[in-house]
Amino acid sequence: MSAVEATVTRVGAAELRAAVHAALTAAGAVPDEAAVQAEQLVEGDLRGHPSHGVRRLPVLVTRLRAGLIVSGAGVGCEWRTPGLAVVDGRRGFGPVVARHAAGLAVERAATQGVAVAAVRGSGHVGMLAPYLETMVDGDCVALVLTISEALVHPWGGARAMVGTNPVGIGVPTGGDPLILDMSTGAVSMGRILDHAAREEAIPLGWAIDAAGAPTTDATAAAGGAISPFGGPKGYALGVALETLVAALTGSALGAAVTGTLDTEHPSTKGDVFVAFSVDAMGLAPRLAGIAGYLDDVRASGDGAPVTVPGDRARATRERHLRDGVPVDAAVWRQVRELAEETE
Amino acid sequence: MSAVEATVTRVGAAELRAAVHAALTAAGAVPDEAAVQAEQLVEGDLRGHPSHGVRRLPVLVTRLRAGLIVSGAGVGCEWRTPGLAVVDGRRGFGPVVARHAAGLAVERAATQGVAVAAVRGSGHVGMLAPYLETMVDGDCVALVLTISEALVHPWGGARAMVGTNPVGIGVPTGGDPLILDMSTGAVSMGRILDHAAREEAIPLGWAIDAAGAPTTDATAAAGGAISPFGGPKGYALGVALETLVAALTGSALGAAVTGTLDTEHPSTKGDVFVAFSVDAMGLAPRLAGIAGYLDDVRASGDGAPVTVPGDRARATRERHLRDGVPVDAAVWRQVRELAEETE
Repeated sequence: MSAVEATVTRVGAAELRAAVHAALTAAGAVPDEAAVQAEQLVEGDLRGHPSHGVRRLPVLVTRLRAGLIVSGAGVGCEWRTPGLAVVDGRRGFGPVVARHAAGLAVERAATQGVAVAAVRGSGHVGMLAPYLETMVDGDCVALVLTISEALVHPWGGARAMVGTNPVGIGVPTGGDPLILDMSTGAVSMGRILDHAAREEAIPLGWAIDAAGAPTTDATAAAGGAISPFGGPKGYALGVALETLVAALTGSALGAAVTGTLDTEHPSTKGDVFVAFSVDAMGLAPRLAGIAGYLDDVRASGDGAPVTVPGDRARATRERHLRDGVPVDAAVWRQVRELAEETE
Repeated sequence: MSAVEATVTRVGAAELRAAVHAALTAAGAVPDEAAVQAEQLVEGDLRGHPSHGVRRLPVLVTRLRAGLIVSGAGVGCEWRTPGLAVVDGRRGFGPVVARHAAGLAVERAATQGVAVAAVRGSGHVGMLAPYLETMVDGDCVALVLTISEALVHPWGGARAMVGTNPVGIGVPTGGDPLILDMSTGAVSMGRILDHAAREEAIPLGWAIDAAGAPTTDATAAAGGAISPFGGPKGYALGVALETLVAALTGSALGAAVTGTLDTEHPSTKGDVFVAFSVDAMGLAPRLAGIAGYLDDVRASGDGAPVTVPGDRARATRERHLRDGVPVDAAVWRQVRELAEETE
């Protein structure tokens, strides 16, 4: 066992949720909202994405105590047109607002065919996959977008100007849904910071340094910018999503996006939830064909493993539910300390 | 001037459109539909994407004469719900049906906030950019998706199972719109065939051969499959778009997608047009902020060129309108021959 692996401990998902819940309520969160936020953080670790997991708890607690996150204020909603809701998160927990928005879009799509919930004033939503799954369970094709602080450089650019802007697509099938939840950055800043902490080099192509030059030095990368995935095309997608979200939510853009990683600024990002009703299309009977196609895709490696978006996270989640959730020991210690505090 | 460059001739855009129009009407197309299809083919060459340009004319003419494309049959439209139209292309020209569908979505979005036109039974639509521009001119944020014959291999897969499935996003700004029109393949099959014709090697990463191995041999690649752009992430996006389009249009999937490159089968692909009204969101006053952000992005190279999606095609189009459209001499000869035929 390496020194790095030795710092990881296994925690049961229920125990982890309970500790996060206790920490959030100790910091002033309303219990049912704390439960939603705790579940969403634990989902990050369960699915193998600790960068969206309980390691974000300390920032949430600090933001909550500073009034940058407000619990119990409810969610504002105005249907501007039959298919388009403007959602005011009222500085609430990202997952609380996001679940509400996803539910609004799904419910309205049943009669409208398609509906959008455009969210402002909400905290970091975490992984998109759980919302996509909920929307797919509501018999919808789902598109979920959010933006982040500027961490990615434009292709040819020398500094971070674009968020890691993930694209979330959920498609119902006869079987397991297709769930795409993918950042447009080459890598997460969390992974770069992990390498920096271990003084390990990063592969060329992950990031540039503060002077705009490609680097393998993780510390220099942490002070520079993440590269987009897939070169110019990934950059083009990321910047297109940044402007699409801004045009539909009135969010900030680029370096003006704040409030998801920091502990000083209100959230200025936006989130977009689009639900397309499969029933309204009359296409539910055809969904089994999509499952069959995806099985053919999985078999297309002639023995080599081929996965469909959602497969890997689903398998990881099952394994972690069974064997315990791997959590960095220092993070787990911090979570328990926060859980033992009183308001 | 190299041997390759010497085979390219310059043709005025109007002359090119007129010749394509004549060829299409000679093959039985209704004049106004021939004009729409001719304009869309010429737009491909104008914007520097000859793979979507007039070189596709011979296939269109053959399909038209074979009854696989039907001109003058109109476009069927059924609003299943207030926001969702099912469009039957009736085997019509892709651009004729696509323009109609884009117009339906924009018009309906004005009252609904968001509207979808889901298209089946339509020919190849060509570049997505012109439709995106039209939708943006209608004060909408636009999302346009289409799928193609299976040409791209899944990540880890040994054969083509996924279309080159482009993603089209249009965002209005105070100035030039952002127009993303981007295939999820690493490269077009047209470019691979060009290399094969010139017996030139292709870069590693563009394609695999028929046995599933990465290759630099263009001829082997033409008999194999294109790689997705950006590795596993580009594949994930491409396959997600394939299933999203299928779920919303009832289109075929993977190897069952036919009728855009071949001259034997009806079109079984689908197209999706989604319009989000900026006016309905009340966000038109904020669009100037998007233009300002994009100017900052363009300046982020500290002297090195940085483009925003749409910039390059716009500049190329202006240059080709001024200097003439570069067309392969053999293609231009063929266009003129087809134009001189009578039905």
